[in-house]
Amino acid sequence: MVSPAAERLRYILGEEDDMPTPTLFTEMDTLQQDGDELEWKESARWVKFEEKVEEGGERWSKPHVSTLSLHSLFELRTCIQTGTVLLDLEGYSLPQIVDEIIEQQVDEGMLSPDLREKISFVLLRKHRHQTKKPIHRSLADMGKASGGGARECPSALWSSMAVSSLRHIIVLPKCYICHAQSRSMNDISDTPSTDQLRNKFMKKIPRDAEASNVLVGEVDFLDKPFVAFVRLAQATTLGGLTEVPVPTRFLFILLGPTGKAKSYNQIGRAIATLMVDDLFSDVAYKARDREDLIAGIDEFLDEVIVLPPGEWDPKIRIEPPKKVTSADKRKSVFSLNELGQPNGAAGGGGGLAEDEEMPVAHELGEELAHTGRFCGGLFLDIKRKIPWLLSDFYEGFHIQSISAVLFIYLGCITNAITFGGLLGDATDNYQGVMESFLGTALSGTVFCLFSGQPLIILSSTGPILIFEKLLFEFSKNNGIDYMELRLWIGIHSCLQCFLLVATDASYIIKYMTRFTEEGFSSLISFIFISDAIKKMMGSFKYYPINTDFKPDYVTAYKCECLAPDPSESILMPTDNTSSLFGLNITGLDWSQLSKKECVKYGGSLVGNTCKYVPDLALMSFILFFGTYSMTVSLKKFKFSRYFPTKVRPELTEEGLDLYTVTNRLLFWGQKGCPTRPDRGWIVLPFGKNPWWVYLASFVPALLVTILIFMDQQISAVIVNRKENKLRKGCGYHLDLFWVGVLMAACSFLGLPWYVAATVISIAHIDSLKMESESSAPGEQPQFLGVREQRLTGILVFVLTGVSIFLAPILQFIPMPVLYGVFLYMGVASLSGIQFWERIKLYMMPSKYQPDFPFLRHVPLRRVHLFTLVQIICLAVLWVLKSTVLAILFPVMILGLLVVRKMLDMVFSQHDLAWIDDILPGKDKKKEKKKGDKDDTKKKDKKKGRSDDMGCSLPI
Amino acid sequence: MVSPAAERLRYILGEEDDMPTPTLFTEMDTLQQDGDELEWKESARWVKFEEKVEEGGERWSKPHVSTLSLHSLFELRTCIQTGTVLLDLEGYSLPQIVDEIIEQQVDEGMLSPDLREKISFVLLRKHRHQTKKPIHRSLADMGKASGGGARECPSALWSSMAVSSLRHIIVLPKCYICHAQSRSMNDISDTPSTDQLRNKFMKKIPRDAEASNVLVGEVDFLDKPFVAFVRLAQATTLGGLTEVPVPTRFLFILLGPTGKAKSYNQIGRAIATLMVDDLFSDVAYKARDREDLIAGIDEFLDEVIVLPPGEWDPKIRIEPPKKVTSADKRKSVFSLNELGQPNGAAGGGGGLAEDEEMPVAHELGEELAHTGRFCGGLFLDIKRKIPWLLSDFYEGFHIQSISAVLFIYLGCITNAITFGGLLGDATDNYQGVMESFLGTALSGTVFCLFSGQPLIILSSTGPILIFEKLLFEFSKNNGIDYMELRLWIGIHSCLQCFLLVATDASYIIKYMTRFTEEGFSSLISFIFISDAIKKMMGSFKYYPINTDFKPDYVTAYKCECLAPDPSESILMPTDNTSSLFGLNITGLDWSQLSKKECVKYGGSLVGNTCKYVPDLALMSFILFFGTYSMTVSLKKFKFSRYFPTKVRPELTEEGLDLYTVTNRLLFWGQKGCPTRPDRGWIVLPFGKNPWWVYLASFVPALLVTILIFMDQQISAVIVNRKENKLRKGCGYHLDLFWVGVLMAACSFLGLPWYVAATVISIAHIDSLKMESESSAPGEQPQFLGVREQRLTGILVFVLTGVSIFLAPILQFIPMPVLYGVFLYMGVASLSGIQFWERIKLYMMPSKYQPDFPFLRHVPLRRVHLFTLVQIICLAVLWVLKSTVLAILFPVMILGLLVVRKMLDMVFSQHDLAWIDDILPGKDKKKEKKKGDKDDTKKKDKKKGRSDDMGCSLPI
Repeated sequence: MVSPAAERLRYILGEEDDMPTPTLFTEMDTLQQDGDELEWKESARWVKFEEKVEEGGERWSKPHVSTLSLHSLFELRTCIQTGTVLLDLEGYSLPQIVDEIIEQQVDEGMLSPDLREKISFVLLRKHRHQTKKPIHRSLADMGKASGGGARECPSALWSSMAVSSLRHIIVLPKCYICHAQSRSMNDISDTPSTDQLRNKFMKKIPRDAEASNVLVGEVDFLDKPFVAFVRLAQATTLGGLTEVPVPTRFLFILLGPTGKAKSYNQIGRAIATLMVDDLFSDVAYKARDREDLIAGIDEFLDEVIVLPPGEWDPKIRIEPPKKVTSADKRKSVFSLNELGQPNGAAGGGGGLAEDEEMPVAHELGEELAHTGRFCGGLFLDIKRKIPWLLSDFYEGFHIQSISAVLFIYLGCITNAITFGGLLGDATDNYQGVMESFLGTALSGTVFCLFSGQPLIILSSTGPILIFEKLLFEFSKNNGIDYMELRLWIGIHSCLQCFLLVATDASYIIKYMTRFTEEGFSSLISFIFISDAIKKMMGSFKYYPINTDFKPDYVTAYKCECLAPDPSESILMPTDNTSSLFGLNITGLDWSQLSKKECVKYGGSLVGNTCKYVPDLALMSFILFFGTYSMTVSLKKFKFSRYFPTKVRPELTEEGLDLYTVTNRLLFWGQKGCPTRPDRGWIVLPFGKNPWWVYLASFVPALLVTILIFMDQQISAVIVNRKENKLRKGCGYHLDLFWVGVLMAACSFLGLPWYVAATVISIAHIDSLKMESESSAPGEQPQFLGVREQRLTGILVFVLTGVSIFLAPILQFIPMPVLYGVFLYMGVASLSGIQFWERIKLYMMPSKYQPDFPFLRHVPLRRVHLFTLVQIICLAVLWVLKSTVLAILFPVMILGLLVVRKMLDMVFSQHDLAWIDDILPGKDKKKEKKKGDKDDTKKKDKKKGRSDDMGCSLPI
Repeated sequence: MVSPAAERLRYILGEEDDMPTPTLFTEMDTLQQDGDELEWKESARWVKFEEKVEEGGERWSKPHVSTLSLHSLFELRTCIQTGTVLLDLEGYSLPQIVDEIIEQQVDEGMLSPDLREKISFVLLRKHRHQTKKPIHRSLADMGKASGGGARECPSALWSSMAVSSLRHIIVLPKCYICHAQSRSMNDISDTPSTDQLRNKFMKKIPRDAEASNVLVGEVDFLDKPFVAFVRLAQATTLGGLTEVPVPTRFLFILLGPTGKAKSYNQIGRAIATLMVDDLFSDVAYKARDREDLIAGIDEFLDEVIVLPPGEWDPKIRIEPPKKVTSADKRKSVFSLNELGQPNGAAGGGGGLAEDEEMPVAHELGEELAHTGRFCGGLFLDIKRKIPWLLSDFYEGFHIQSISAVLFIYLGCITNAITFGGLLGDATDNYQGVMESFLGTALSGTVFCLFSGQPLIILSSTGPILIFEKLLFEFSKNNGIDYMELRLWIGIHSCLQCFLLVATDASYIIKYMTRFTEEGFSSLISFIFISDAIKKMMGSFKYYPINTDFKPDYVTAYKCECLAPDPSESILMPTDNTSSLFGLNITGLDWSQLSKKECVKYGGSLVGNTCKYVPDLALMSFILFFGTYSMTVSLKKFKFSRYFPTKVRPELTEEGLDLYTVTNRLLFWGQKGCPTRPDRGWIVLPFGKNPWWVYLASFVPALLVTILIFMDQQISAVIVNRKENKLRKGCGYHLDLFWVGVLMAACSFLGLPWYVAATVISIAHIDSLKMESESSAPGEQPQFLGVREQRLTGILVFVLTGVSIFLAPILQFIPMPVLYGVFLYMGVASLSGIQFWERIKLYMMPSKYQPDFPFLRHVPLRRVHLFTLVQIICLAVLWVLKSTVLAILFPVMILGLLVVRKMLDMVFSQHDLAWIDDILPGKDKKKEKKKGDKDDTKKKDKKKGRSDDMGCSLPI
């Protein structure tokens, strides 16, 4: 079953790996004639993907997948078979290496000795590289070039000639030999030039990289190709051969008779592509002889993916895929001495052969295991965190932390402003912007100092905001003191959190699936959207517009305050009223009174403008939709390409764009929401409400606990996902403990409650990500891990605390702006979730439906059924929310868990695995069996989900 | 040089083509076990691209390029080499064919006779096809399926088993032989089933198509593969073998021992892909023996495009490319008996081998040749059109015309409304909506009846609008009667047009390049944008907002009209004033007067609201930006996927979206612009202006002529482009003649002037395009031509004429809405042109720059220089436009031609060819030399430009 090629490879690759082979940088130079001079011009390069020099554009193309012709690969195979192969040549300079090659060819009778000089001359011509010039230099060039119209002519001629398919055919001038004698035989310097050293491309190449140089060209003095493949014993810097100062290890030379330049180029590209192939480069490093190389080519050919000529235009450059199959799988076939089936497994993009596995249930790590002991989880958490205590601080000292702090700070104060404003609005300013800043600073600092997962950022969140609103309305309607009730709820809730911590209850988070999460966040989104629009519509009611207004009749519009009819005031004693306000009403100048005063003193407002307020409603509308559209377009701008990579993410992340918007509108009119003056900084627990309220608040506290628990732990699960590569472990129980403590503290101080905010925590992690510095062009940079420390978080919240002095200014932000942000948050969080995508499927003919993975595996009607169930659940929740049961909505969310459980009976586990997640316990065994084998796959799957989730709970 | 394979192919393909080979539809069925039953299940199909059955999703995947493994192609080659090949078998039913194959194999000793029955049993199992169910049926299924949770279980088990890489391995049950005996040997019916007949997929398959069926599967009774390739002498419908009732011509059968299902599938996909390859299917039809087939495979292998395994994930499905290289090139190598270089030319996507040619100068057809005779062009035009006169009418009777008429009608009245409104605004209602409708109807009908190119739609355009505005201002400032001046300009201009027609002057249109066109349309765009914004800002000036308004002090806001101070009125005789208005001023109730009356009677307005107008400015702002954003988003919606293809283009084209917007806001308040009452329907040529004006109007007429000429002929060039495949020829001179006549007529009637409108004309052509009805899934439908006739145009304008009764309603459309449309037009036309793309390049790091073709061929600094020149030209034009020279702006546009001519000295022709176009005369010879060889290329290039152009002049 095993071919001789595979046998060979198994032999050379199966050896114990003493050291990994270096990465290869491959440069292909072609022989060109510039005027009278011959030179080697760089025409393409490979780190992993191909970058080509755009002939006319004098620029590098975008990295793309090398598309080869099968023919050129076979020709290459023949070249290696018939050409000179020198392995482990002791080479120290290019002339010496060239001499050795020529000597070898002459010895073997493949080259007539009189061509020796000519070949050597051609091979030692200088190399011109395509280097990226900085913009000021290229602008200088522009001036120069545009001056001389005449100078352009030959070049224009040349290019039009080159263009007309004659390109690259170099006809050597007749006086070839005289040139050869009159000029230096060797144009190549021994040391790297400054251009080489300054080349910024160097940072894209791994430090240990070695170069392989491919030289192809046609000359008129040869009648059969001159081919050489050289591996040097030591990688050596061969002067100006390579674009970057990387030592050369491999050299492939192909000179041939004129007329087949295209074909030579193809062969050059083929060997270059082979050299950057992970498996073939291994083979090239370890090959003992020509046959090993050929076996390597054969193996490559076996694994190659083929596109039929009639279905694909070879001119299209294929963009590098997001993810590339690892070469390890191919290598393992040889090195592990497994009797595998190396062939036929690679191909088949659309074939039946694809072995996509069912997505596995999300594992949540041993931190969530149920210990069964009292506070078992908490103690484990503390034990896990103590060893990192010191490093949690000193690891924060890094330049990256500064940008992370700034970025997250902006996000935090945006959140504080928005939620502060909205909370103030919802609670009649019992909690306003001032409290929001203070609370954020206090809770955040404490949490970052002591929590189990200091990367989590605490913030006000949507569910809590909605709950506070419902609570305030409830207490107002029932004559209960809001602040005191809230304090008791906080205390109860804190105790309940302790109970949850003590009993390791966090493990039930495992039962939360996409279904529940999406239901939860959709409901919140809908509430956000409907509230924002309702509020907006409200302004048209409060500030009605006079739609009949005619500018010409402005003289007819007035609103006058008339004194009350004296005949009516006879009924009440006149003295009484006048003394009531300490004024003599009869002496009052009624026309000077304001609207409120007029009403106060019993006057009547007469006139056709009294009930209208000009401009305000429309201005609110403009601010509302303006804010919304600006946030939307700023968010979109992220994907634009106008700024260098480093700047962009920070410039346009949600945090900043909201900030920009609010800041821009900061000083615009209309008084907002000052913190209520009739409340102190300490809320006293007794005195304002009857005693039973203290006990009864246990019930709403339960609701808050459910909310907090779910919000906190879902965010924590997302932050602690495996693909974030966190080393220091997490602490679900410890986190919940501190959230509980902070709840009580905030309740005493009358500050809002805080839980983990998904979006901003993810942003925190993203801004602290460590990535491999050099990645091949076109390749995704490798993610190394996250800078886990407490310093950035603490700094963010200290800064937020300092910003409290901004609060007096910030409260002038008009409410419509905040409602606009509110609307944006609702819409943005809706559009990110799969549920919404599935709803859209209802409206799409199946031909146009996007290629979602779940659509490949689950019949459309099942998907629709699942979506329908979700819609019905949401509708029921919405109706319940609109009734008196509104305040119970956290419990309703729990109801979703029950519905999800019942879905297990309707849908197969296979379908659920694709549309939703599998509940734990259902396929634990299967999961264990599969284990770590397909780790990479899991990660990728997870990653996909993480993106989803990131969007699904941005509130 | 010529390989034996090529020799063979040349022999069989080189024969005289008696008839083209039919298109092949290929279906691959795999052997599956459903419960106890064996069946063939359709797993993929090919018309041109592969469509796969998504196992779990029970749906067809999107069509994609088949990615094969090279290994499977080699295995297939071996299969054909060793298996049974029966060419031109006389087959009438599947059992008979199967018998023949088995007999052959037994005869050759490849199959032991005792397996005869088993193989025959397996091959005659019934075939299950993946057919698309209508939605009501699948909903019914949904109900059924969701009922039985238990029923799902085995299926779930099965899929999870299938999923875990064991898929497709059919272990036949032990009681295999008893089954074979107990059940019918043949499950396949002789006639096509109703499912087959009703299959809507049929319409995707060309009528003459034949089927090739690929059957692969594993069975446990074989120890070596059973392979057969059959070509039937006559294509025969073999019962339920194929999904659609298409007769089968080819049959490929591969049965093999268990354990290598994946590999068999790959081989099946390989032969299926080969069968749909244009060249191989030719070979398959004409092959004389096994060796011919193998030669066909070898040729295919030679042309194949290869992706390196390390750079591409084979799981990614590649979308079909927009354009596929024609197989004719490959075929020509064999059939034309040319000694070509068949190999090595196909590959090299990114390689140096790509032979992209310089874009050729746009040829404009012999219609624009300079005849040199008096009216030579005009007579030729008339001669060209006369033969089509009848067909111009009867070809209009087609169902497509109805939708075209409706669509273009909507576009026309939108244009009439918008430009009518704006013209009314610009000319103080001398030309309003009413005139606009009337003029459009009149000019359009006449033009469509008599013009050379009836597909062109006349409309008001931006340049004319701007000229009218400048003219009106000029005449107002200089005390000249506008309508009379305009009439004389019209007369002069008409005569000038006749002169241009008589001298065949239209040929100079050849000197217009992208540079000039872009300069022209950018200037217009900028004027549109700046005017729209200026007008908008104006409304804040006319209707100032009281920013200090406090709702509470509404009582303090009033505006009263006070009688003039009697002491002042002493100076003028009181009786005089009172008698002036026939009123006794002293007896006037001043407080009842309106603002205007108050001012009229000399009263003074006192109060703090007099100078403010509430709500109007903000409402205008909302309407303005609302209209703009709605048009933008409606335009974007076009690319969305929510409607079946047929509906979408018509639903969202510019015409309609504007219409929707304006219609929706139709009845909203604020009185607009009624047609001026003090003008009649005939403008008299004499009487109002001094005599020299009649002569002097020659100068502005020249400007109008330049404008009209350029606007008209550029649009005509675009409409008459070769890629529109017009058969009836065009008539530049005839068109211009009628435009001139209509100018004079419109001037007499006081109607606006009309010229060809690019966007709407292109929309007209698009809506009349004829496309090939069946195109393979994933393939672009083939464009056959345009329904050239006069009927649709005439109907459109008659309808527009009837819609004149709408005008009284339409004039209530608020102006801000029209300004919003105006802004949109400006922005949209800017964003479509290359100039704008190049400006954006300034701000992009080169890494993020899109892969424009010109960037591949022209150095960035030259591109930047070219853009800079354009920017400077525009800036100069803009400055000139703002001075007294404004009215000369058509001449300035001609200045652009001069600048462009000078650019020839700075830029090489090669660079200009890519960024701009080459001026005629520069490379005429080259063009002719290349001639028709690369016709397809030219067309594609043109097409790209046409899209650009289409957008570049939408005004």
